[in-house]
Amino acid sequence: MKLIADIKEMQLFSNATKKTGKTIAFVPTMGFLHDGHASLLKKGKEVGDLLVMSILVNPAQFGPKEDFTSYPKDIKRDMALAEDNNVDVVFNPAADDMYPAGFQTFIDIEKLSNRLCGLSRPGHFRGVATVVAKLFNIVKPDIALFGGKDFQQARIIKKMAQDLNMDVDIITMPTIREADGLAMSSRNSYLNKEERKAAICLYNAIKKARDIFDNGVRDADAILKEARNIIKREPLAVIDYVKVCDIDTFEDLDTIEDRALLALAVKIGKTRLIDNDILG
Amino acid sequence: MKLIADIKEMQLFSNATKKTGKTIAFVPTMGFLHDGHASLLKKGKEVGDLLVMSILVNPAQFGPKEDFTSYPKDIKRDMALAEDNNVDVVFNPAADDMYPAGFQTFIDIEKLSNRLCGLSRPGHFRGVATVVAKLFNIVKPDIALFGGKDFQQARIIKKMAQDLNMDVDIITMPTIREADGLAMSSRNSYLNKEERKAAICLYNAIKKARDIFDNGVRDADAILKEARNIIKREPLAVIDYVKVCDIDTFEDLDTIEDRALLALAVKIGKTRLIDNDILG
Repeated sequence: MKLIADIKEMQLFSNATKKTGKTIAFVPTMGFLHDGHASLLKKGKEVGDLLVMSILVNPAQFGPKEDFTSYPKDIKRDMALAEDNNVDVVFNPAADDMYPAGFQTFIDIEKLSNRLCGLSRPGHFRGVATVVAKLFNIVKPDIALFGGKDFQQARIIKKMAQDLNMDVDIITMPTIREADGLAMSSRNSYLNKEERKAAICLYNAIKKARDIFDNGVRDADAILKEARNIIKREPLAVIDYVKVCDIDTFEDLDTIEDRALLALAVKIGKTRLIDNDILG
Repeated sequence: MKLIADIKEMQLFSNATKKTGKTIAFVPTMGFLHDGHASLLKKGKEVGDLLVMSILVNPAQFGPKEDFTSYPKDIKRDMALAEDNNVDVVFNPAADDMYPAGFQTFIDIEKLSNRLCGLSRPGHFRGVATVVAKLFNIVKPDIALFGGKDFQQARIIKKMAQDLNMDVDIITMPTIREADGLAMSSRNSYLNKEERKAAICLYNAIKKARDIFDNGVRDADAILKEARNIIKREPLAVIDYVKVCDIDTFEDLDTIEDRALLALAVKIGKTRLIDNDILG
């Protein structure tokens, strides 16, 4: 496994790879890897000739009051997991190289970024889109893989790739969950024992919504009321949003015709967790 | 010479070209070509193995009250000029293919876009940056060439390429002028006989500024006063801006230390013309 920190070196490596006709699969991460990332790496190895994974805690996607400085890190464990998953290149640039003094270029995906998490995290998706575009221009992947827990992020990146004619196939992989159903996230490491127990309310809310939907209910408010009640019963949980919305536009739905996205963001103590499911 | 209108076909053609190890030089245009464009094509042919020119009147860079619908067109003459200049591929996409329904992704170069022309044309450089990024992702050039008349545009594109790690060398070529000094522009075709005569005031203002600078004056206001007076004496001319500013940041300068950008935008009747020169 090759470790590259220099941006130009990564670009030259990718140029050389592509000239041989080999395809590049790419998994961008912020490190502190879990089984969700592992599932992306496994799929990446299947669909591409060469597998590149990046590790960068991207300052541009954190708000001023968010957890950029405390975001968990364990580069040793990450490298071992990358090695175990047959990663060919780990690209690990310095944040200062990615955002040198005078940096001022940002990509906005306007409508999709102003819904769901975009409302409580202004600028977040601008930061995500910008860094992903940068990484795509450096790594030059044919295929890039993103996790389904961050449904809105994956949708926004797909939209960016489509709108800007990026020649990259975007694959979204299913959310990987802990044994009790909690969606895997690097941020789960913030939770203390009590909070960890409380955090299961997100998945329980999803299960409840799915039960009601499976019983034939199509009225969004009826579904949402029950899902929110599950979370409200948990003293450590504070709802940011629980929404039933159009799977493509994220616009609120009153009635589910065909299928819908159930998306939720909940604070457990200081930790903001998200989860989602497709109803239909 | 090959003519390609389909985005995917252009992308596949560029992918195939790059696999052979050939480099691509790219000249993006809005058509209605003049000798300024010809100079870019000549240079492009020198620096790249394959020369691609695009023609697209880009709706995203025009304001609602600007001349998008009346922008001059002469595709027959453009094709002949492309042929004369050994263009290998003319890429001529439909605007609706470039901006399909639901398009919502835009690139902002924040500081540089909020100065000079950015102030009188809000959203203009966002539209320019966005279409250039799209064209880069479609044509995949190694080198792209831009005209020096649009100094701010060229600077912004360079900054975008740098900030987003686009693997493209940006070359800016000197402004090409008519015999009397008027900078060549497709928009010169809007001018009637009287306006065409009046339009020389832009170049006269530049010459005046350069004279004063060459005589040792370094005070920006003193230079600007004389340059503005030249334009004010022309009854058909209305100043949008005349500025002496930093060549990299476009911030106003009080005193010219080393060198500076003299930039001006002037309306001659309904036609907005720009020009610039480097003092120093």
